[in-house]
This record gives sequence, C-alpha cells and structure tokens, in this order.
Amino acid sequence: MADITATSLAQHFLKSALIEDNCFQSTDAFLTWFSAKKTNHHFSVRRIPFSKLTQWFFEEATSNLKHASGRFFSIEGIRVTTNVGPVSSWDQPIINQPEIGILGIITREIDGVLYFLMQAKMEPGNVNILQLSPTVQATKSNFTQVHGGKLPPYLEYFLERKKSRFLIDMLQTEQGGRFLHKRNRNMIVMIDHDIEVLDDFCWLTLGQIKRFLRCDNFVNMDARSVLSCIPFPNWYLGHESAQHMLPATSDDFSRSLILSLLCPDSSACHSLCEILSWFTELKTKYQIHVERIPLKDVRHWKRTDFEICHERYPLFSVIAVSVEAGTREVFSWTQPLLMEQQQGLLGFLTKKINGTLHFLMQAKLEPGNRDGIEIAPTVSCSALTFKQTSGFPIPFLERFVNAHPCHIRYDVVQSEEGGRFYHFLNRNMVIELDECETIEAPENYIWMTLGQIMELVKHGYMNIDARTLLSCIGLQK
Amino acid sequence: MADITATSLAQHFLKSALIEDNCFQSTDAFLTWFSAKKTNHHFSVRRIPFSKLTQWFFEEATSNLKHASGRFFSIEGIRVTTNVGPVSSWDQPIINQPEIGILGIITREIDGVLYFLMQAKMEPGNVNILQLSPTVQATKSNFTQVHGGKLPPYLEYFLERKKSRFLIDMLQTEQGGRFLHKRNRNMIVMIDHDIEVLDDFCWLTLGQIKRFLRCDNFVNMDARSVLSCIPFPNWYLGHESAQHMLPATSDDFSRSLILSLLCPDSSACHSLCEILSWFTELKTKYQIHVERIPLKDVRHWKRTDFEICHERYPLFSVIAVSVEAGTREVFSWTQPLLMEQQQGLLGFLTKKINGTLHFLMQAKLEPGNRDGIEIAPTVSCSALTFKQTSGFPIPFLERFVNAHPCHIRYDVVQSEEGGRFYHFLNRNMVIELDECETIEAPENYIWMTLGQIMELVKHGYMNIDARTLLSCIGLQK
Repeated sequence: MADITATSLAQHFLKSALIEDNCFQSTDAFLTWFSAKKTNHHFSVRRIPFSKLTQWFFEEATSNLKHASGRFFSIEGIRVTTNVGPVSSWDQPIINQPEIGILGIITREIDGVLYFLMQAKMEPGNVNILQLSPTVQATKSNFTQVHGGKLPPYLEYFLERKKSRFLIDMLQTEQGGRFLHKRNRNMIVMIDHDIEVLDDFCWLTLGQIKRFLRCDNFVNMDARSVLSCIPFPNWYLGHESAQHMLPATSDDFSRSLILSLLCPDSSACHSLCEILSWFTELKTKYQIHVERIPLKDVRHWKRTDFEICHERYPLFSVIAVSVEAGTREVFSWTQPLLMEQQQGLLGFLTKKINGTLHFLMQAKLEPGNRDGIEIAPTVSCSALTFKQTSGFPIPFLERFVNAHPCHIRYDVVQSEEGGRFYHFLNRNMVIELDECETIEAPENYIWMTLGQIMELVKHGYMNIDARTLLSCIGLQK
Repeated sequence: MADITATSLAQHFLKSALIEDNCFQSTDAFLTWFSAKKTNHHFSVRRIPFSKLTQWFFEEATSNLKHASGRFFSIEGIRVTTNVGPVSSWDQPIINQPEIGILGIITREIDGVLYFLMQAKMEPGNVNILQLSPTVQATKSNFTQVHGGKLPPYLEYFLERKKSRFLIDMLQTEQGGRFLHKRNRNMIVMIDHDIEVLDDFCWLTLGQIKRFLRCDNFVNMDARSVLSCIPFPNWYLGHESAQHMLPATSDDFSRSLILSLLCPDSSACHSLCEILSWFTELKTKYQIHVERIPLKDVRHWKRTDFEICHERYPLFSVIAVSVEAGTREVFSWTQPLLMEQQQGLLGFLTKKINGTLHFLMQAKLEPGNRDGIEIAPTVSCSALTFKQTSGFPIPFLERFVNAHPCHIRYDVVQSEEGGRFYHFLNRNMVIELDECETIEAPENYIWMTLGQIMELVKHGYMNIDARTLLSCIGLQK
C-alpha cells in the first residue's frame, strides 16, 4: 500500500483542499460533463398513491409500510416521552433501517495531490435529480443483493483491507428526528494504482469539492457526511508543525478557522475535559423514552391515499413515488419517501473568544438517536416557517434569519439524502458575531474550538446536522 | 475554586500516586482504623428463601423480581441471538437498572499533595463485608430518597458545580453480562477548603490507594471504576514535558508503563485511526439481538425456594439475603443478589513491540451492552473452572493459568460490586511476555499502547473489566 505516514497524510488532505487544478479535467470540463449527465439521462419521478406501490405494502396488523423482502427500510411509529423541551410527549412516524451501510470515497495520490473518486448520482428525492455523491453509498441490502441487481461498483475496496488502505472509518449517525438508530460506516480508502473510472465517476481534488459546497444542492448529504470526517492536521501533528505547514491564506475567516483548529486545549474557552463533563451531566439529566408502536396507533397523524401527514401541522409527510431511469436499459421502481413541507435551517453561531474563533454547539435530544443527546449546531430546525410562528421559540434562530450580511460567512442551501427524503432542503449558515457581543446561552449550549469539534467527530458525538456544516466550512484560498 | 491548571492537575495526580506519606494518618494508622471499623460494626448477612423477602416480590404476570416501589433494580429475562461466538442463542436473567447513578471521589490539595476522601463501606455481597469505597456511590433512587433514608453524605459536591470543580466526569458502563444497559457517572471533584470528615471516611493519597490495590478484595469495584478514569499525564501534556516530569523509578515494568503511556501514536503498533477502523468494522460485523422477556420465560433456568439458577451449568444464580447492620441504630433489610458460583479471571497480556509495551485488547460482545461490542481485556472470563472444561476454549486463557512466575506483573483477587453481587471474585492478572514471542490473535484482538487505551477510556470504549485492571496497574516507586 501507499507508504504515506499519518503525518504526511494530513498534509496531503490539506494540500488537496487548497488545489483546484485537476490533472484529469478542469473544473469547467467537469461542470460540462456533469450537466451532460443530467441532460442525457432519463430520470423521471412522479408521486403516486400508496395503492400503486409495488413490492411495498401496509402490513395488516400494524399498518407499518414495509418492503415485501422484509429488507431496505420500513416506516413505523414511535411514541416519545421526554423531560426536555416544551413538548413532553408525542407520536410520529419514523424510518426504521437498522442495518449499517457504507458511505465511502476512494482516494488516490497523483503527482503529490490526493484525488477523490466522486459519482454523479441520481436520487428520486433530489430537488435537481443529480448530485455529486461518494464513490459508494451502499445499504446492507445492496451488498446482499436483495434487489437482485448488481453489486455496487468499487464496493470491494471498502470491504477488503488488502485492496486499499482505510484512512477514515467511523460510524456516524443520521437524522435522529427521521431515522430510528440509523448509522453508516463513513469511509475514505486509499489505493495506490490506477483503476477504471466508470461512466458516472470522476476524480476531483478536495479543493474542487469544497468549491462545489458553495453551490446550492450540488454535493449530496452522504458525500458531506464522509467529508466531515476528514482529519484536519491537528489529528496528527503538534500545533507548531501544523502551523508551519499552512500557507498564508488571504481570507480572514479561513485564518480564524485554522487558528481555531490548532488552538491548544488549554487556551480554549472550555477544556475538552469540561466539555465532556457538560455532556455527561446533560446525558444524565435529559431523559427520553421511545417506544416503537404500530404506524396505525400514531396519534394525530392521518393517512390519505397519497400521504401520511400530521393532522394540523406542516411537519414532514410520508409519500410514494414512481421512478423511471436509464438510457439504454430502463429501470423502474416505486418507493416511499419522506417529504418535508418546508425548508429548515442549520447554523453555526461563531465568535472569537480571547482571540480564537469558537462555535456555539448544542446538546440536542432526538428520538431516533441511539443514546439520547448528540451534539448539534447552534440551530438545527426543520419546518422553519412553521416553527417561527409556533410559539416555542428556537434559541438563536433570529440571529440567522435576521443576520446582517457582514456577519454571514456561509449561506448555502443543501439537500438531505435523496434516497429517503423528497426535496428536503436546509439552509446552511455560518454566522460570525462581533467579538464584543455577549451571548447568554441555555445550559445545553457550549462554546468549542474547531479543534475540539473535530476531536469529538472522531468518536461519533456530532450529529449529521453538525457534520454537514463542518464539511461545508473550509479553507478558502 | 482552586486555581490549578489542567497541566498542573496531571502533575498533581501523578505526584499523589507516588506518595504514601499521609499528613492525616500513616498507612499503619489507617489500617488499624480500617480493621477497627470491621470489628466494631455489626453487619450480618444471611441467605433466606425468596418467600422471606420484604418489599421485593415476583410480579405475577412475568415472575420478574421487583421492588415494591418500582425503583432500585429488577431481575428480568433476556433472549439473546448473535452471529458471534460458539453459542448463537441463549436466555438468561439480567439486572435491569436503567438509571444513571454517581460514583464519585472528592479530592483536595494539602501541601501540594492531592488527597482523596475514601469511605470504609459495608456491602452485603462483599466476601469480607468492608471495602474501601469512593466518597459517594449513589443510585438515582438514593438521591430521590426512595428508601425514605438520608441523602448520602457529600452528594451535593457532585451535583452542584459551584461547590466543587469537576475534574473527571464520564459515563462508564458496568458488567454487560449481568446488567442491562447499566452506566454510572464516574466523577472526581476537587474542593479547596476543609470539610468535615465523617465517621467512616478518611483522606488517602493515590499512592496509598494504589498500594491497597495490591491486596485481595480491599478496594471495591466502584472505587476501581472511578480510579481507572484518572487522566495520566499525556491527557494534558506534550510527550517531552511529561517525560521530564516523571521521577526515575526503580521498577522495570513501571518504566515500561510510562513509556507505553507516552508513546507517540505514530510509533505504536497501530495508529489510533487504525484502532478506530478495527472497532468500526467489528461493530458493523458483530450483531447481537437482545429481547427483554419475562423472567418466567427464560429457558433452561429454574427457580427453587432459594435460588434461580441454570439447570445444568454452574453459571451465576439469583439469591436472596437478609442484612442486619448498625451499632447504635440497627438497620435491617432484605434484597436479591447475583451469586457467582466460581471465580473468574481478568487479564492483560502485554508485550514489548518495537521496544514499547503494548496491551492485547479484545472487542467483546455482551448482551447488556448498549451498543454491541466494548473493549475488554485480553481475557475476561467468569466461571473459570467450568469454562476451562466446557469445550469452548477461551483464547489466551492458558497463558494466564499456566503463567511462569517471572512473567507475572500483577496477580490479585478483586471483588465485583457488593451491592448487587454476592462473593463475585475475579483474579486480576497482568502478564508480560518476552519481546521475542510471536502471538497469533483472532480478528477481535488488537495491540494498543497504554496511551491509546487511556484515550479510549475518556470516550467510554473500555468495559468495566478493562477499567478495573487499568486502575490496578500503577507506577511503583
């Protein structure tokens, strides 16, 4: 395998993040290729009544929505009681998909630069059909071929250690408000030889991918989830050596990010030890009880021919779609999706404290989390318009909605996973407040440096909303 | 609060670990005090039939053994199926105690030395009644006063951040073979003023406690669990400064431990990144399904007047005891306990690899774990005599049982928690193999340095068996 030490690996990730020149194709050529994919492929998605679903059915005893094979996922109900937040008890539908899938990207070094094998992938729930995706996104049903279809290409590089070097390999969770206990193995593996680049795939530098993260709905959620795990230099290096390694950047916020990444624990607002104590205390205090119930017993949700939705509120709903895809061969299938009726907002509030940029992070309880709280961004709010008028104020939301442009460091709409969600969009924002502003935060918020956040990513503390924002913020040249 | 920085805190822990001179009382005086406690206190425990339990009853529909208040703990059944190990399915009784309790030690600096407030505490399941315990061991039922008894002394220092500084505060698990999802908050808090030392309490240095860990059944499991979380110097310091801080020790194995603790990740047999990948892969691969079932439906276990035990094998059993305690006032109560019929063995196999001491750690699946595998010592085996003849060999067990004395670095019998377990003893061993020996290990074993192990302790990867051994190994002067 490639003889790259951990230290030089960090340098390689960083170098790739700062490069947009691509020896395979220029960014312009890539964009032409990408839009040609969109034009040339036939892919149509239309909503159908549940009665037209094939292979999917409402189970008689429970009304749970299941696949005939018993695999993939099912839509079931949960009954939640909690001692946290304004609503102490509710029922809701949830996606149950207990298997661990793989989200993986292959990387390869060419002339000292790491390239990442990305896929132009169509998903039925994508607002724009085609998005930039990891090399592989495979559920366990994919590998075990419940479809009767082909094994996903390149999967073997993520299953066999002799075929690649596993650089990143972590279990990370997905939306705890929509999935019950869902986790995926997030992987980046390195190969040291040439491989065939199949039709929908291409090699990109990290710098190119980071650039596309500045465009709405371009890089899909699975790719963002994997990218969020990339070890920044402080994984491997002492602070001094990392600082030498970094080039002078022109952008002030990028410089702040680097310093926040490299900030020694002792100079942070709270030590990692204090952060773990904060988290432990809240984990002890914040209780949630989640009981799985039949979908038919979910109170205040109704099922019509076309959707399962809340009786009164514009929350998400369960819908059914029919998909036709393919150019030469035509594939078609039907499946349920979760539709969000309104856009959400994910945001990091940041601010320099003693000269170092800190992020205000939130301990958030969601019913589908395996173990109560996970760490979320300052704001992580679905159904934004509804929640703004619901009478239960979301802390700090106004700071984003009414942000002065000079405080906005990032503001891009990103899509959640199009294989499960229909047009589920979140506005992703990073705000930098003036250093002199004083913030009063409830007990479940704490300031962290970027270095501390990345340390906690490694061990699975950060939820998908926090990770998606992390993947988006990057060094700007 | 005491103005001790994180760096100097690590130095303070280390200094205390190397000191046995105590400004309050000598070790001899302490031992006299401790045995006087044993002599002067009346404490009698006798086995009774289940029918003589007061407040505890077998619930009619399930035969689950419960307390009348619905609190404390209950004994229920689980049905386990797994794709790992020689037995793919079994039923067993288990203790269900879903609340998070507190195991906490108060520390205080006197003349530059940290002292720890320890308790001489009697528990009905202790083989020798009295053991050295943390300042506080409180279940949630204790704080919420289900007993109707007094609030445990000193508890307020662990609940109110303004009364102390929380130095260590982590959720850690307990025996996944006996408890369903049990966790406690393990805490060390520092105070900066004098407090009243109640009758059964005394201040000890870490060096004194470490010395008592060399005696059989002296320091209880709860104390060992808390002590295992103490941050070694590499938590806070760069390697160079930590090395300067350490005194020259006379003992070869202590020197090896220090070097293993300070070994840079890049010089370890596997990087932490590789260890996390190993763990992630096994977490994905090793599946266990645990269904809670009524105790009456547990197959192959029988209930007699005096015990619930396995029909054929000498595993653990559920028994009932009556306890009388007190000198002036007399308290008495009855309760169930889990009795182990045979001693177990917990052991670290260690060996220098490229000159650095490494520990062979095991990913172990136990049914009461919240999330499948946790990291266990090389060997963690209950009912030793039975398992040696059961036809399912335990990897590496013979290395301990037949160890040559020159390889034994630690060999002490320790007790598991006397509030739940009756005479549950484990032989705790550390073996150091010759550097030239080659070890072939199954896929669920991996070599780690002590530094890597301590990093993983912080985030709750290490099970109670690994942690109890960690608390025992220490620097010898």
